[in-house]
Amino acid sequence: MIRVRMKVAYDGTAYHGWQVQKNGNSIEAELNKHLSALLQEEIRVIGASRTDAGVHALCNIAVFDTHTRMPAEKISYALNQRLPDDIRIQESCQTAPDFHPRKCSSIKTYEYRIWRGEFPMPVVRLYSHFIYTSLDLGKMREAASYLEGEHDFKSFCSADSQAESTVRTVYRIELDEQGSMLIIRISGNGFLYHMVRIIAGTLTECGKGRYTPGHVRDILEAKDRQLAGPTMPARGLTLTGYEFV
Amino acid sequence: MIRVRMKVAYDGTAYHGWQVQKNGNSIEAELNKHLSALLQEEIRVIGASRTDAGVHALCNIAVFDTHTRMPAEKISYALNQRLPDDIRIQESCQTAPDFHPRKCSSIKTYEYRIWRGEFPMPVVRLYSHFIYTSLDLGKMREAASYLEGEHDFKSFCSADSQAESTVRTVYRIELDEQGSMLIIRISGNGFLYHMVRIIAGTLTECGKGRYTPGHVRDILEAKDRQLAGPTMPARGLTLTGYEFV
Repeated sequence: MIRVRMKVAYDGTAYHGWQVQKNGNSIEAELNKHLSALLQEEIRVIGASRTDAGVHALCNIAVFDTHTRMPAEKISYALNQRLPDDIRIQESCQTAPDFHPRKCSSIKTYEYRIWRGEFPMPVVRLYSHFIYTSLDLGKMREAASYLEGEHDFKSFCSADSQAESTVRTVYRIELDEQGSMLIIRISGNGFLYHMVRIIAGTLTECGKGRYTPGHVRDILEAKDRQLAGPTMPARGLTLTGYEFV
Repeated sequence: MIRVRMKVAYDGTAYHGWQVQKNGNSIEAELNKHLSALLQEEIRVIGASRTDAGVHALCNIAVFDTHTRMPAEKISYALNQRLPDDIRIQESCQTAPDFHPRKCSSIKTYEYRIWRGEFPMPVVRLYSHFIYTSLDLGKMREAASYLEGEHDFKSFCSADSQAESTVRTVYRIELDEQGSMLIIRISGNGFLYHMVRIIAGTLTECGKGRYTPGHVRDILEAKDRQLAGPTMPARGLTLTGYEFV
């Protein structure tokens, strides 16, 4: 038996997220179904990031065990023939038998995309959140700088999270303007439930002038979800980087 | 009665192109239906570019006459409330009563997007064409340079075109690399039926080494559609600029 590791890209628009759900389709269920058919044995993948409904990924990681004699590197090609076109394996390879993607140190990068304009733009609507109000990027960058480093992110975590510790390290938050598109790029050693979308929402509130950048320090300190900004919609969020360190 | 000019953006994925069709929905039909309902009179728009099935636009132009007393600038807001989310008016204003968007000189810009990789990337699949083979951009740029200027583009026009003259001026062809995405950006005073997609296909053949860049001059000279490259798929094409001069 070998353990195989795959890099998985998907458009999350049509899915109820990564994890198998009773109602609604999931990325995990699609992978299990098509891998089992391809390899003629029951396959259960383990995912690195269990992304929410509607969130996209360029490079989530899935791991599974198999008795197949198909070379691990060929699985990507064969599986892509079967998958729907909104899921595509980018790479497959053999990995250590005890490799577990959620029990390894890693650097994850997410991008939150905001389209700024008078009206929404159809060709980007599925992969960004539209904002009419103008944003002060200088204020957003200052606010972002207070979130970099190791902090207790309890205020930036949905109340129904089951995480034992709410301390995480954010390595970097970058704001990248590409015309009307604003990209908030966040990398860290891990993220709490809804954390990236709440950070994006909080920075956006700063950009709109609803509160000062320095207030973000008070929000961190209060450890109270009520004080942070709104959870931004899932469609703007994409997992863009996954590195094991 | 006033004449109103609108800038129209759309995701062409779900449409049979701009023009009203017997079978299948079109951008023009959606605009006529929702404008007629909004303004309570029968509206028939005139489009600037009658884009093909599956082609996208950031800024196509539509013009129509109306007796409404609604200020022309407000029509965009009201109409966007009614349109499906893959069509959005970006601007509306009053224009001269004799303004006809296809009878004015204009500079049109199209982008053809090519995703280069080992596998397709789901989040860009609707707005680009996937190519596995690597492309030599130097050769593509040289080939592109022979197409700039005023030429008879008969070889770059689908056989079923009804254009009287096949002479057009291409002002510029730029190749813009954004990571794995290659953008072929073409501006000109007008384009023949399928011309941008055939140019993209021909440049791609040069990039693959199927023929030399200089061969593009022979193709132009031959005035024979058979010699040029394939018509690239519609999903990669977006109308990105429209300027009246």
